[in-house]
Amino acid sequence: MKTNTPIKIPENYNFGDVFTDHMIEMDYEEGEWGAIVIKPYGPITIEPSNCALHYGQSVFEGQKAYKVGDNINIFRPKDNLARLNKSQERMCIPKFTDEDLDKIFNGLLMLLRLDRNWVPEEPSALYIRHFTFATENFVGLRPSKTYKTMIILTPVPPYLNGFAPTKLWVPDHYTRASIGGVGEAKTSGNYAPTLMPVEEAHDKGYSNCLFLRDGGIITECAAANIFFVIRNKIITPKLDGTILHGITRDSVIKLAKLNSMDVEEKIITINDLMFEAYHGKLQEIFMCGTAACVIPVSELLYGDKIIKPIYDIGIKTKFMYEELTDIQYSRTEDTFGWVYKIL
Amino acid sequence: MKTNTPIKIPENYNFGDVFTDHMIEMDYEEGEWGAIVIKPYGPITIEPSNCALHYGQSVFEGQKAYKVGDNINIFRPKDNLARLNKSQERMCIPKFTDEDLDKIFNGLLMLLRLDRNWVPEEPSALYIRHFTFATENFVGLRPSKTYKTMIILTPVPPYLNGFAPTKLWVPDHYTRASIGGVGEAKTSGNYAPTLMPVEEAHDKGYSNCLFLRDGGIITECAAANIFFVIRNKIITPKLDGTILHGITRDSVIKLAKLNSMDVEEKIITINDLMFEAYHGKLQEIFMCGTAACVIPVSELLYGDKIIKPIYDIGIKTKFMYEELTDIQYSRTEDTFGWVYKIL
Repeated sequence: MKTNTPIKIPENYNFGDVFTDHMIEMDYEEGEWGAIVIKPYGPITIEPSNCALHYGQSVFEGQKAYKVGDNINIFRPKDNLARLNKSQERMCIPKFTDEDLDKIFNGLLMLLRLDRNWVPEEPSALYIRHFTFATENFVGLRPSKTYKTMIILTPVPPYLNGFAPTKLWVPDHYTRASIGGVGEAKTSGNYAPTLMPVEEAHDKGYSNCLFLRDGGIITECAAANIFFVIRNKIITPKLDGTILHGITRDSVIKLAKLNSMDVEEKIITINDLMFEAYHGKLQEIFMCGTAACVIPVSELLYGDKIIKPIYDIGIKTKFMYEELTDIQYSRTEDTFGWVYKIL
Repeated sequence: MKTNTPIKIPENYNFGDVFTDHMIEMDYEEGEWGAIVIKPYGPITIEPSNCALHYGQSVFEGQKAYKVGDNINIFRPKDNLARLNKSQERMCIPKFTDEDLDKIFNGLLMLLRLDRNWVPEEPSALYIRHFTFATENFVGLRPSKTYKTMIILTPVPPYLNGFAPTKLWVPDHYTRASIGGVGEAKTSGNYAPTLMPVEEAHDKGYSNCLFLRDGGIITECAAANIFFVIRNKIITPKLDGTILHGITRDSVIKLAKLNSMDVEEKIITINDLMFEAYHGKLQEIFMCGTAACVIPVSELLYGDKIIKPIYDIGIKTKFMYEELTDIQYSRTEDTFGWVYKIL
């Protein structure tokens, strides 16, 4: 199936506006997940009473496919599947069995081979959206009896792959998630609540939000984890149930350890951060996630206080961006076996 | 349009499984809400990349239509519309203008007249589900540019309209919403997170959950507000952003005041409640909401502690149930002008 037909990606498009030729569908009915079906990308029919629309019983995953010569690399794909399964469990969606997971993984490989001409050249990539949602038609509050899991593919526009510093607003009156909630599940209902705060951030000239919980504990951005470099140590909020278990986050931690960098997952408050910044010890800030890889953060706004790291783009931030990108494009040793190569 | 053709409601059905013949659709495009369309109930087509499915940008409302002779009563319908508009604002969905609201209200009246033979006899009723969701097809995290609002109708099975005491589990490790979140918006993402705790409640022999926040402050159930009668005073958690502004809740408060009952909206903790119960001062507990009206609560389980009010069905609980039902069925004076009669 390896071909050299021209890539069909349009000239100008926004992220998530254009989809490839094919998609995967797999239904859950009568107590089990059925067969994987690969079909042309196209609309689906639901009833107005589809319970996922009303009650939010839906979860998703994002990963990317990278073009490396005539091959395609995908990054930690089985970790994405494992996380999707974990999200499904929290949202009362039936989990995939190991056999289901194998079917889905093999289906994804077939789908990527089929639509391989859609994988853009570096620095762009093909975004893989896997999602599962309730499909029963009723308006009561109980778990659905039927579900659908789908994989669709959308090329990432090149302009989204830059590596330039951004600025974040730290709202003191919006939270993303709290202890006892579903913050660590990748479920639809964790995202729409961030739209209003992020719009407010834009109005203030900031690109996104860094959310606090319980009056000051730093959690994460609307769709990315956060890291700080303080006194040469890499610090990120510890996983407490409110924070997504970011695969890029985990990769950064493992790469730091591999490279003998000091790294710690801990509770860090906005006051801690202001204290360190005031004393000139806050060296770097960066966000990370699948969509953006690693993005340097040059400024935080909290109330009327501006918090700035010493470096707009710090050495550790740059190292992580380059190391991850090099692994994803097979330019350096893949010590952890993170890359799956599709020939 | 007033007819006496036989009611078409099937003999046996579950809540939300059966829909009436017609529905309302109204689309938002290019910066404005368009025309109201009444059409046969039927499926809708969405793309797999529909952003409401992925990011939860959707809100809803519930109200009921009551059969009173050959007429239909609806209860505080404009309050439902106002709350929907407020939910839309929080979720970055364009609000309805006053003109849109008039169009929708008139559309609802037409729809109910058209499907009037679907309104069941007392004690049952016709449930009105109004919902609005994002319809743009993309996988990025930003507000959609297009939306759809719909109204569908589903008869409530008679067995759901009883007035019998129920028991609630008070989990100490699940929260429904937190300060700074979207708990008071009627958005899809507030509901799926309650499925797992409610399943756990069922396993323990309890019908639903009463959720706490911040380690002990009482909030609400999965889809109903909560009231207590303590030392002859009616008490309900105050609106703090985490609690739905229940229309039944508001009606109970107004009816209490009208009838010279002592009523207070305040912060109440589970420890306060245990203290009052221990001293024999917790007289009644009831849940309330549109679907269930008023439901007596005869027991709470918190950790290994059982909290029981003096009365399984208290006098104030019974009064509120009967008074509200009597108003909804035009059997008593409608002091507040809550009922809208459709002739």
